[in-house]
Amino acid sequence: MHGGKLTRQILDRARLYHALETHEPDDKLSSMISFTIVGLIGINLIAIILESIPSYEAAYGEIFAIIEYVSCFIFALEYVARVWVCVEATTTSQLAQTIEVPTSHLAKRLRHVTRPMAIIDLLAFLPSILTLLFPGLDLRFLRILRLFRVFKLTRYFSSLEVLLNVLYDERKSLMGTFLIMLIVLTLAASALYLVEHEQQPETFGSIPQAMWWAMAALTTVGYGDAIPMTAVGKILGSLVTILGIGMVALPSGILAASFSEHLRFQRESLQNHINEAFEDGVLTKDEAKGIIDIGTELGLSEEVVDQLVQRTAQMLVENRTNIVDDRSAEEKQ
Amino acid sequence: MHGGKLTRQILDRARLYHALETHEPDDKLSSMISFTIVGLIGINLIAIILESIPSYEAAYGEIFAIIEYVSCFIFALEYVARVWVCVEATTTSQLAQTIEVPTSHLAKRLRHVTRPMAIIDLLAFLPSILTLLFPGLDLRFLRILRLFRVFKLTRYFSSLEVLLNVLYDERKSLMGTFLIMLIVLTLAASALYLVEHEQQPETFGSIPQAMWWAMAALTTVGYGDAIPMTAVGKILGSLVTILGIGMVALPSGILAASFSEHLRFQRESLQNHINEAFEDGVLTKDEAKGIIDIGTELGLSEEVVDQLVQRTAQMLVENRTNIVDDRSAEEKQ
Amino acid sequence: MHGGKLTRQILDRARLYHALETHEPDDKLSSMISFTIVGLIGINLIAIILESIPSYEAAYGEIFAIIEYVSCFIFALEYVARVWVCVEATTTSQLAQTIEVPTSHLAKRLRHVTRPMAIIDLLAFLPSILTLLFPGLDLRFLRILRLFRVFKLTRYFSSLEVLLNVLYDERKSLMGTFLIMLIVLTLAASALYLVEHEQQPETFGSIPQAMWWAMAALTTVGYGDAIPMTAVGKILGSLVTILGIGMVALPSGILAASFSEHLRFQRESLQNHINEAFEDGVLTKDEAKGIIDIGTELGLSEEVVDQLVQRTAQMLVENRTNIVDDRSAEEKQ
Amino acid sequence: MHGGKLTRQILDRARLYHALETHEPDDKLSSMISFTIVGLIGINLIAIILESIPSYEAAYGEIFAIIEYVSCFIFALEYVARVWVCVEATTTSQLAQTIEVPTSHLAKRLRHVTRPMAIIDLLAFLPSILTLLFPGLDLRFLRILRLFRVFKLTRYFSSLEVLLNVLYDERKSLMGTFLIMLIVLTLAASALYLVEHEQQPETFGSIPQAMWWAMAALTTVGYGDAIPMTAVGKILGSLVTILGIGMVALPSGILAASFSEHLRFQRESLQNHINEAFEDGVLTKDEAKGIIDIGTELGLSEEVVDQLVQRTAQMLVENRTNIVDDRSAEEKQ
Repeated sequence: MHGGKLTRQILDRARLYHALETHEPDDKLSSMISFTIVGLIGINLIAIILESIPSYEAAYGEIFAIIEYVSCFIFALEYVARVWVCVEATTTSQLAQTIEVPTSHLAKRLRHVTRPMAIIDLLAFLPSILTLLFPGLDLRFLRILRLFRVFKLTRYFSSLEVLLNVLYDERKSLMGTFLIMLIVLTLAASALYLVEHEQQPETFGSIPQAMWWAMAALTTVGYGDAIPMTAVGKILGSLVTILGIGMVALPSGILAASFSEHLRFQRESLQNHINEAFEDGVLTKDEAKGIIDIGTELGLSEEVVDQLVQRTAQMLVENRTNIVDDRSAEEKQ
Repeated sequence: MHGGKLTRQILDRARLYHALETHEPDDKLSSMISFTIVGLIGINLIAIILESIPSYEAAYGEIFAIIEYVSCFIFALEYVARVWVCVEATTTSQLAQTIEVPTSHLAKRLRHVTRPMAIIDLLAFLPSILTLLFPGLDLRFLRILRLFRVFKLTRYFSSLEVLLNVLYDERKSLMGTFLIMLIVLTLAASALYLVEHEQQPETFGSIPQAMWWAMAALTTVGYGDAIPMTAVGKILGSLVTILGIGMVALPSGILAASFSEHLRFQRESLQNHINEAFEDGVLTKDEAKGIIDIGTELGLSEEVVDQLVQRTAQMLVENRTNIVDDRSAEEKQ
Repeated sequence: MHGGKLTRQILDRARLYHALETHEPDDKLSSMISFTIVGLIGINLIAIILESIPSYEAAYGEIFAIIEYVSCFIFALEYVARVWVCVEATTTSQLAQTIEVPTSHLAKRLRHVTRPMAIIDLLAFLPSILTLLFPGLDLRFLRILRLFRVFKLTRYFSSLEVLLNVLYDERKSLMGTFLIMLIVLTLAASALYLVEHEQQPETFGSIPQAMWWAMAALTTVGYGDAIPMTAVGKILGSLVTILGIGMVALPSGILAASFSEHLRFQRESLQNHINEAFEDGVLTKDEAKGIIDIGTELGLSEEVVDQLVQRTAQMLVENRTNIVDDRSAEEKQ
Repeated sequence: MHGGKLTRQILDRARLYHALETHEPDDKLSSMISFTIVGLIGINLIAIILESIPSYEAAYGEIFAIIEYVSCFIFALEYVARVWVCVEATTTSQLAQTIEVPTSHLAKRLRHVTRPMAIIDLLAFLPSILTLLFPGLDLRFLRILRLFRVFKLTRYFSSLEVLLNVLYDERKSLMGTFLIMLIVLTLAASALYLVEHEQQPETFGSIPQAMWWAMAALTTVGYGDAIPMTAVGKILGSLVTILGIGMVALPSGILAASFSEHLRFQRESLQNHINEAFEDGVLTKDEAKGIIDIGTELGLSEEVVDQLVQRTAQMLVENRTNIVDDRSAEEKQ
C-alpha cells in the first residue's frame, strides 16, 4: 500500500471508521491497525513485567522509558481517532430503532466517550501523561496501573468478547455467589475460631485470623500454614470444606447455563441463514460454502451444520408433498 | 418526607405491607426500610468479627454492646411489623387458587410465623434477649450465633434468592452427592489405612485418622500434613484423587442443569411478554422499552431480547400472509 | 401391626415383592424393612470405622463381632427373600414388551441374581461367611471389604439412584476423561523429569517419581512435597497446571449435560401428566394437588409447575377458540 | 483365519481400507489390527516410563531397544498402508458433495498426509528413524518425544474422539479463557508484588516471582511455598483467589454447554431413526432391537429411548385420529 493512499484512507472518516470498528480479515488497513495495537500491548506487558526485576530496571531502564513514551503517543492518537469517527456508527437493532437515538455529532461523541471500552482506552495513556505533568506521584503504583492496558485486547479477540459478555450477563448471579461465599467464609471462620482459638491462639486467635484458614479451605487452595488440630476442629473443617465444594460449583453452574443459552442462540442464527439459502428450493455451491463459513465463524462443528442442512432439506420436501396432497384433495373435492 | 406522613404510612397496614414485602425501587418508604435493615446487618457483622479480636473487645466493648441492643430492638420491631401486615398477602398462582387457602387472620399469621424467613427473623434477636434474661449462658457461643443474622440479607438481594432457590430445588441431588462423597471418603480412607498404617502410624493409624487425608485429597485442598509415603499408597492415593475429581464435578453438573432450566424459564416468560406486545400487530415505543426493561430484569442480554423480538415479528408476518393465502384460496374456491 | 398379620404378609410372595421393591411411603411393611436395613448398614459402617482404632478394638471387640454376625444373618435373609419374590416383577416398557422376555421362574431368578444390585447384596455377607469357614484368611482386608455394604444404600435413596444412573450413562465419556488425564499426566511428568531431574534427583529422578508431582498439580491438590525449582520447571509446571484445569472441567461439563438431559426428561413427564389432567377441559382440585405432588417428586420447583399449568390452560383456550372459529367459518361457508 | 486368506485380505485395497478405517466389531481383520496397534502403544508407554528409572535402564536396556525397533517398523508399515488405502474414502456429507472434492489418487493422498491423524502417525516413528541416521542427537529428549505415540490411541477410542472434538470445537473459547487466566494472573501477581515485595523479597521480589504464587493461588493448587504474610497481602490474596474460582468455572461452563449441544444432537439422531421405524405404522421386534442398539451406541439411557418411542407412538395415533376426524367432518359437510 502506498503512503499516499494510506494517508488518504486514514483521513476519510467513513473509511477509517470501517477500519477501526469492523474487523474484517480482508480489510488491509484494519489488519494493519489491529496488528500494531495488539503488538504494542504485548510489548508493553512484557516491558512492565521485566521492569519489576531490579537488575533489568537498572540495565535497560531507558529502553523501558522509550517504549512507554511511544506507546502512550500511539494510544492517545488511537483514542482521538476513535472519538472522531464514532459519529459514523449506525444501528441495526429493531428495538434501538424504535426508541429515539441521539443524532447530533456532539451527542454521539459524548455517548462514545462514556462507553466502557472508551474509558479503558483513555486509562491506557492518561496515568502516564499525569506522571509527566506531576513528577511527584508514586511511580511504582502508576507503573502497575499501566497493566490495565491489557483490557484493550478485548476489542481484538472475538472469543474474549463472548466470554466477557457472558460474565457481564451473569454479573448479578456471580455477585450473589460471591456474597454466599463471603457468608459461608465468615460462618466457617467463626466456628473454627470457637473450637481452635485455645489450642492455636496464633492462627485461630480471632475471627479475622481464622478467615485466612477458611479462605484456603473453601477455595480448596490449602496452603498448609493454618490447619485445624483438635478432633472437633478437623470434623468441622472437613464438613465445611465438603459443603464448600458445592459453593464452588455455583459459578460453574451459572456460567454453563449462560454458555448453553449462547450456543443455542448461535445455532438458531445459523438455522435462519440455512432457511434463507433454501428459500428458492435449491442449495447452490456458493450458498453451501457460505453456510459452512457462517457455521465456522459461530464456532459450530461441521457435523452440526451438516445435520441442520439435511433436516431443513427434508422438511422442505415434506412440506412440498403436503402442498401437493392438499391440492389433489381439493381437486378431488 | 415529613415525619407525620411517614407515621401515617407506617400505621396503614396495606401501605406498610407493600413497603415491607414488595421491593419496588420507586417506593421511598420501602427503600428507607431496606436501607436501614441492610445497613444494620452489615454493621452487626463487622462488629461481631471485630469483637473476636481480644484487644478490640477490651477497647470498644461498650460500643459493641450498644450496637447489639439497638439492633435487637429494631429487628424485634421489624418482626412484629411483618406478623401484623402478613394478612394482606394475596396469591396469584392458579394452582394455589384451586386448592383451599387459609382465610382467617389468625390462620394467615400462624402460616407466616412458620415460614423459613420468619424463623430467621425471630432467631436474629431471640438469642440476645435470652442472654439478657438468663445471664448465666455461654456468652461466646451466643455471640457467634448472632452471625446468623446474615441470612436476613436474602430478602433484600434478588440474585441471592435465585441462587438459594436453585440450591433448594436441587437439595435432594446435592444431599445425594454429599452421601457419595462420604462413601468415597470412607472407602479411600480405609484403603490408605490398610496400605500406610504400618509406615505412618501417627497419620494413618486408624480409619478416622486416614479420613483427614482422604478429605484433603478428595476436595483437592491438599494441606500437606498427611501424605502417603509407600509406592502402593501413592498409586492408590493418585487414583482416588483423580476419580475424586469426578465426584467434585457432580455438584457442578447438577447446578448447571438447574440454572439452565431456570434460564429457559426466564426466556419463555419474556417471550410471553413479547407476544402480548405484538398482539395488536404493532410494536410501539413504550412496548419496546417495556420489553427491554423486563429483559434486563430477567438478566437477559439485549442481543437475545432483540433476536426474540425480530423472530416474533417475522412469524407474525408469515402467519398474516398465510391467512391472506387461505382467504384468497377460499375466494377462488 | 400384629405379629400374626406381619408373618402372613411376609409369607405372601406378591405382598412381600411389593414391600421389598416398591418404596411407597404409605406401605408400613415396606417402611419397616427399609428402616431396618438402612439402620443396620449405618451401624455396620460406624462399627467398621471404629474397629480400626486399636484401643476401641481391644475394648469392644466382642460387641463388634456380635454386630457382624447379626448383620450377616439379616443380609443373607434379605438376599434369599429377594430371590424368592423376584418372579413377581412385571415390565411396563413398550420396547421390552416387544422383545421376548424370560417367563419361567428359574429364568427370572437367574436374571435377577446376575443384576448389579443382587451381586452387591451377595457381596454384603459372603466374605464374612467365608471368614467363618476358612479362618486362615487375612482378617484385616476382609474387614475393610465389608465397607462395600454401603452400596446397598443406593436402593433406598432415590436421589443416589439418579446420580449413579447419570454416572453410568456417561461411563464411556468419563473413562475417556480419565484416559486423557492419564495421558496429560504422563506427558507433564516426562517434561518435568527432563527439566528437573538434575536439580532434584530425589523427587524428579524418574518419570514415575515425577508423576506424583504431576498428579498433585493436575488435580490441584498441591501437597507441597514436590515443587519444581528451576525457572523453566516453574514455567512448564504453571502451563501444565493451567491447562490441567481445562481437563478438570471436562467431567463437570459431561455431567452437567447429562443432568440437563435428565431434567428436561422429567419436565416432559410432568407436561404429559398436566395434559392428561386438562383432557376434560377442567382442572379439578384433586388434579391440581396431584400435579403438585408429581412435580415435588420430580424435584421441580412450584414456580416451574405453575408456569407449565398456566401455559397448558392458555393453549387449551386458544385451540378451543380455533375450533369455534373453524366452525363459524364452516357455517358461513 | 488362515495365513493365505489374511494376506489376500490385506493386499485387497478396498478390504484393507474397510479394516483400517471403519472399526466394526464384527470385522475380524479390523479387530486384529486394532488390538495389535493399541497393545503396541501400551507396551511402548510402559517401556518409556520404566526406561527413565536409572536401575531399570541399566538392567533391561536391550529389551527396551528391541521393543523400540519392532514398534517403529510396525508403525511405519501402518503409515504406508494408510497412505495406500486412503483413496478408497468416500463422503456422505451433503455439504461436501455440493462443494468440489479432489478426485485424483495423488490429490487424495496429499490431502490424507496433511491431516492431523496422519501427522501423528508419522511423528510416531520418524524421530526414532532420525536417531538411527544421526546418532549425535540428544537421546533423552527424543525418547520423551516417543510418548506422543499415545495420541495414536484417539483413533481407537470413540469416547476419546468425542471429547477431543468438543475440545476442538471450543478451542477459541478455551483459548480466550486461557488468555483471561493469564491477564488475571499478571494483575494478581503485580498487586501482590506491590504489597509484599518489601516483607518477602525472596518470594515476591519481582512480578515474575510473584506469578509463581499467583499461579498456585488461581489454580487452587496452593503448594504452600509462597504465602502472603502482610494483612493487606492476605486480604488481596483472598479476594484474588475467590474471584479466581469464577475464572476456573469458565472452562467448565464452556465445555458443559458444548456437551449439552452434542447430547441434543445425538437425541435428535435417535428420534430420526425412531420416526423411520414407525413410518409403516408398526414397530416390529427387529426395529425395536435396532432402536435400542442405536440408543446404546449413542450412550443414551434406555429410559430416554423408551420415552421417545412412546411419545412417537402416541403422536402417530393422534395424527391418525385427526385424519379420521377430518374425513368424517368432510363427509358430514
